[in-house]
Amino acid sequence: MSALNSTHDPARRSWIESANAGNADFPIQNLPFGAFVRGGELRTGVAIGDRIVDLRALHDTALLEGDAALACASVRDGTLNALMALDARHVSALRGALSALLAQNAPARSRLESSIDAVLPQMNDVQLTLPCTIGDYTDFLTSLHHTERHGRYKGLADPLPAAFKSLPIAYHGRASSLRVSGGEVRRPYGQYRDAEGRVCFGPAPMLDFELELAAVIGRGNPLTQAIPIDDARAHIFGYCLLNDWSAKTIQWFEQVLGPFLGKSFHSSISPWIVTDEALAPFRKAAPARAAGDPAILPHLHGVQDQQSGGLDLQLFAQLSTAAMRRDHIEPVRITHTHLDNLYWTFAQMVAHHTSNGCNLRTGDLLGSGTISGASDESRACLTELTDAGKKPLALPSGESRIALEDGDEIVLSARASAPGAVSIGFGECRARIAPALPYPHAPYPLPHGEH
Amino acid sequence: MSALNSTHDPARRSWIESANAGNADFPIQNLPFGAFVRGGELRTGVAIGDRIVDLRALHDTALLEGDAALACASVRDGTLNALMALDARHVSALRGALSALLAQNAPARSRLESSIDAVLPQMNDVQLTLPCTIGDYTDFLTSLHHTERHGRYKGLADPLPAAFKSLPIAYHGRASSLRVSGGEVRRPYGQYRDAEGRVCFGPAPMLDFELELAAVIGRGNPLTQAIPIDDARAHIFGYCLLNDWSAKTIQWFEQVLGPFLGKSFHSSISPWIVTDEALAPFRKAAPARAAGDPAILPHLHGVQDQQSGGLDLQLFAQLSTAAMRRDHIEPVRITHTHLDNLYWTFAQMVAHHTSNGCNLRTGDLLGSGTISGASDESRACLTELTDAGKKPLALPSGESRIALEDGDEIVLSARASAPGAVSIGFGECRARIAPALPYPHAPYPLPHGEH
Repeated sequence: MSALNSTHDPARRSWIESANAGNADFPIQNLPFGAFVRGGELRTGVAIGDRIVDLRALHDTALLEGDAALACASVRDGTLNALMALDARHVSALRGALSALLAQNAPARSRLESSIDAVLPQMNDVQLTLPCTIGDYTDFLTSLHHTERHGRYKGLADPLPAAFKSLPIAYHGRASSLRVSGGEVRRPYGQYRDAEGRVCFGPAPMLDFELELAAVIGRGNPLTQAIPIDDARAHIFGYCLLNDWSAKTIQWFEQVLGPFLGKSFHSSISPWIVTDEALAPFRKAAPARAAGDPAILPHLHGVQDQQSGGLDLQLFAQLSTAAMRRDHIEPVRITHTHLDNLYWTFAQMVAHHTSNGCNLRTGDLLGSGTISGASDESRACLTELTDAGKKPLALPSGESRIALEDGDEIVLSARASAPGAVSIGFGECRARIAPALPYPHAPYPLPHGEH
Repeated sequence: MSALNSTHDPARRSWIESANAGNADFPIQNLPFGAFVRGGELRTGVAIGDRIVDLRALHDTALLEGDAALACASVRDGTLNALMALDARHVSALRGALSALLAQNAPARSRLESSIDAVLPQMNDVQLTLPCTIGDYTDFLTSLHHTERHGRYKGLADPLPAAFKSLPIAYHGRASSLRVSGGEVRRPYGQYRDAEGRVCFGPAPMLDFELELAAVIGRGNPLTQAIPIDDARAHIFGYCLLNDWSAKTIQWFEQVLGPFLGKSFHSSISPWIVTDEALAPFRKAAPARAAGDPAILPHLHGVQDQQSGGLDLQLFAQLSTAAMRRDHIEPVRITHTHLDNLYWTFAQMVAHHTSNGCNLRTGDLLGSGTISGASDESRACLTELTDAGKKPLALPSGESRIALEDGDEIVLSARASAPGAVSIGFGECRARIAPALPYPHAPYPLPHGEH
């Protein structure tokens, strides 16, 4: 469990000036990890302001020693997985060393400044990639309000599944189609029922975003060895944003054994993994449960987790359309929510996931599920924002939306803040809907009437 | 699409005598691919009788040329993935060269015989491993009889989901807990409702096996690029057996978004991938649909797939208990089914899976779902064999089963046969249920009454 240390010192500022702006996502207190392509080579790095510490280039300066040097050497192959699998003290040592090297009064400042473009390239000059190799991706369903609203839209007598308050409900997601923030999400084809109830196949008409936070696993566990709740947070390396794009019409038709093609066409994550250590100042109690909720079973109940399993984290989604960008209208914030809206903590998700002996591997991704709250502004997907299409979302361009149209762009962001701490951000998770491609070698769309 | 060639010649016999037995799974016409550990090193190989061609050792003999040598060189790192990603002609060339080298009249026979233990170790002398790196594992639900019976057990008014005849239903499975045949399956813990309806947590009381065939992807597809039905089979490298172990009580309680902990504790596959090419003599028409079934949508309808998307493949499950083994009672065959019992072909599964642009990667595993048929003997899991527990399975030891007990061992096998062809097998997929471990740091099982 991460404790406060010198890297959290709110008085510390960096000689990288862009890191000191009040609204900077990546001040010296954050130091999140990511990966990027530079000169055709895969590299790993740490974000600071608008620059990236290139860990391989830093290692070559020989400015690091001990555990920090060992941690830095582990990522020379261009993926973070080896670093993430190390004991937390190595990562902590590396963050400590980076914080010291980047602090305003760092003795090595002039040496680093003289080779700044080699060791600290501008973030805009490189191409960010997935931060690590992700073996398995699991998506949870832990917001009570999201779950209840969807149950009501489906007309269920009891909109909350019976198991919801006993365990964090989850399903396996598709790992191969996870992509880093940026670029396009291609509108998928799929089978669905048209207005007349006929089964048809074509570009999915109802695309949605879903705002989630995802934990990235550090040390894994061997098959058959459950992770006790008290150890669970120590297996989480850090967190990133996740947009779990959904094709609702495909989902409604196909869903028997859970989501499949309605989600597997693309999922986006933000490029920077904010470490569990960096989030220490923002820890708070796990969200309280309602009186009358069932007691948490012992294997999901941790004293420390109850005391500090929450995070003071606000999350946002903004939307811009092609027309808005053309007319220079600012993107509009459509969601403002809080991590408190999750019924289960990430430690509980880890403990539950492994309670049957299932092994997590370094780099595995655990999505929280859509983080919707009770309030209207905290609805974290268009389906909820429009009451399942009944109340279209009005945009400043005069347009309205019940689903995402081609050209629409969604940007997710998040900010952790607490009294006395320098607030930190997660960067952004951005992508734009691109029109469906012609379907290969098949007569789609079908001539009218041929369904 | 694989055509008949010299490797299928039924007259060809091998100088490896064990390959020529009438009931051999691995005659010279099969030549399936796998991986193993030898002297602490990961190797790849091809099964022949009771031996394995060690592809690295074979490559070192310099007996191969051209495409065959290239294919053989691609697997020097000890995994099959690079070989599987090659164009089919490379694999075909390698199989052709192996068939020639292993044929009774092979000119190189004496050279290979003189170094037989280096190039062709006994299968029993090495440890078989997962044949390839599996990025994503997808499990389908394509047996109408399995699906209908389970719908009836649940008391559904319409036991067949609406989408069943429009698309091959599927869910994402857990890749990290896939294990090769052999060894133990640890009984998982999980939440379920006890007889009084209380939510409890403990070792899962109702374990089941599920007999499936799985396709292993060769060449993948880029994200957003659907694989047309006519190309789909060319993306399948081969097939293996899959036992989709299920903890039914966990599944019943947790299942909202599909199977999760009820299956993710362990899935077993057989070690040898029987290539699509080796199966060419056993191709048959896709199983006929009933009159009145909906027409297959164009993107899932391939003329060649309809003509040859089926396989003449019988599949078997046998069970032995600890008491049976102690009393030297032979394992009892509990399932005898046929691949004809699938409503969808594997090419249709591939075309559907990628129809939304989802990318398959080399090594991805696509399970068929439990291959149950209409007859009693073709029921391919204990839930069906016992009518959901109502008719316990009587065993020759005097025991009976409605679920798997600790010590029970399941062995899956399969055999392709056709007039005029040498029949081939898949080896076995074997594992034994081991008792649950004590649960770490939590008071389980709970004292009576504390639920």
